[in-house]
Amino acid sequence: MASKEAEVITDIAAMRNWSRSSKYQQQSPTPKTLALVPTMGFLHAGHLSLVRRARSLADLVAVSIYVNPGQFSPTEDLSTYPSDLAGDLRKLADAGGVDAVFCPRNLYDYGGGGGKVRRVDGGGEERGAVSCVEGEHETWIRVEGLEKGLCGRSRPVFFRGVATVVAKLFNIVEPDFALFGKKDYQQWRVICRMVRDLNFSVEIIGSEIVREVDGLAMSSRNVHLSPEEREKALSINKSLSKAKFAAENGQETCQRMKLLIIQSITEAGGRIDYAEIVEQETLKPVEVITSPVVICVAAWFGNVRLIDNMEINI
Amino acid sequence: MASKEAEVITDIAAMRNWSRSSKYQQQSPTPKTLALVPTMGFLHAGHLSLVRRARSLADLVAVSIYVNPGQFSPTEDLSTYPSDLAGDLRKLADAGGVDAVFCPRNLYDYGGGGGKVRRVDGGGEERGAVSCVEGEHETWIRVEGLEKGLCGRSRPVFFRGVATVVAKLFNIVEPDFALFGKKDYQQWRVICRMVRDLNFSVEIIGSEIVREVDGLAMSSRNVHLSPEEREKALSINKSLSKAKFAAENGQETCQRMKLLIIQSITEAGGRIDYAEIVEQETLKPVEVITSPVVICVAAWFGNVRLIDNMEINI
Repeated sequence: MASKEAEVITDIAAMRNWSRSSKYQQQSPTPKTLALVPTMGFLHAGHLSLVRRARSLADLVAVSIYVNPGQFSPTEDLSTYPSDLAGDLRKLADAGGVDAVFCPRNLYDYGGGGGKVRRVDGGGEERGAVSCVEGEHETWIRVEGLEKGLCGRSRPVFFRGVATVVAKLFNIVEPDFALFGKKDYQQWRVICRMVRDLNFSVEIIGSEIVREVDGLAMSSRNVHLSPEEREKALSINKSLSKAKFAAENGQETCQRMKLLIIQSITEAGGRIDYAEIVEQETLKPVEVITSPVVICVAAWFGNVRLIDNMEINI
Repeated sequence: MASKEAEVITDIAAMRNWSRSSKYQQQSPTPKTLALVPTMGFLHAGHLSLVRRARSLADLVAVSIYVNPGQFSPTEDLSTYPSDLAGDLRKLADAGGVDAVFCPRNLYDYGGGGGKVRRVDGGGEERGAVSCVEGEHETWIRVEGLEKGLCGRSRPVFFRGVATVVAKLFNIVEPDFALFGKKDYQQWRVICRMVRDLNFSVEIIGSEIVREVDGLAMSSRNVHLSPEEREKALSINKSLSKAKFAAENGQETCQRMKLLIIQSITEAGGRIDYAEIVEQETLKPVEVITSPVVICVAAWFGNVRLIDNMEINI
């Protein structure tokens, strides 16, 4: 696989045909397995670690690159989300290659003149759950419990948008495995729950967070940080590490750990969206740590919203 | 196929295995096609017409029989919904046979002690959108426009329940075609929209209403009608036929047609839930018929809620 050029596919039917014909080949007695790495592009080492993991799991690897308007509200950063398809293809080739790259133009255009995408930022009106998809599309998947807390509070259309586009990708690409980074912890749990509840025949793999040398969790949005903001943003990882250490040594209450995280990030110049300690499966807040939990943080540095988390397995 | 016994499958993994191994066979150059007829059992001639249509479309036919608690509210008739699996299997065999019958026990039990089904009727509390599925399941598919009108007004959990269970069945059975009766017109349109919006690779076929000799639309619920109620219920078909005739001859306004239907059913002793004239694709009410519409009716006779409709293609 390493030396082969990835097939770049933009058409939905062509993608499904590629998947079926690659998996089911006349000469082979059993179908090949296919792993999908869904991304929004602007790939970094975190994505590439998912790709390597995918190669170890399945015979075939497909990466999708699609900035999904369905998960952005009109006031969010869809219009400035970074992209670089040529760079992404080069990075994938350098990392050993994949079999197919699916980069559809618009997954919400059904040919009826709808499927327009709103690229308003800063000025969109608030009318409840509105995403940047307008027009004909009207089907949304809601994972009603898990979608509500953490990022769901400040981003009310986010998880329905993620669940819906992932379902679309599963139905188009028909993978046996799909890989998600645990940096987007709630997203990973939402997808696991959707797969279970809708009986998708896809095994979901959550992969560990990949960090820069100084501890900053890798994110396509990091490119928007000024050098000063980037320095300040290290407070997220530092405060999470301290809280994790304290928790593992039973030194602090949850309430106090959250306060220390908030204090530390705020003092560094960040603006906290939330800092929560929640059960790993249900994402329900806990007061006392008696089972595996995860500390989740979202904070703004300048115009950039960053998220990070650490699991505590005690 | 006619002489062969259908394979009766209750297990989800076994169903998917059957589908894949039947479709993809080593000796055949192209995969076989599979048509699914999703039903809630207690089969009648309407279902059997779907099965015959399925056989004409695909190499393999599967029928699912599952009374879906997700589409019933606690105040509805889940506990009295008729069922007769042995009779259904006999009817399918007599009608020429199918390849597989999928009759799962509980599609909402994920092994975590949840997935309980509430079989309350008459006394369930109202707390918004609550179905008879309790416990772990939390993912629902909403077709946000089409689910709202007509039956959606008096049955707020119905279409999310239907869309969700049909998605589950598609993911388990992996059919190439799925057949739905147009008696459940709004359901058919909701499924078509979901399939388009979520990119399911399933072609949806809507099949014409099958009626008793006297015009009553076939329904598993007809068995609950007393002879008197059954006689009165003929007013639905009669008033729809009259309205259709009037519309095709341009004799009446929509407003007046609806009034005549309501009057006729009410005089016969029925209790109207709704009578509407709507666009066929969008199900939006129309005042004047300038494109294909459908007249939809729901009415109670005793404790039985019946629905019926007629398309007007002018």
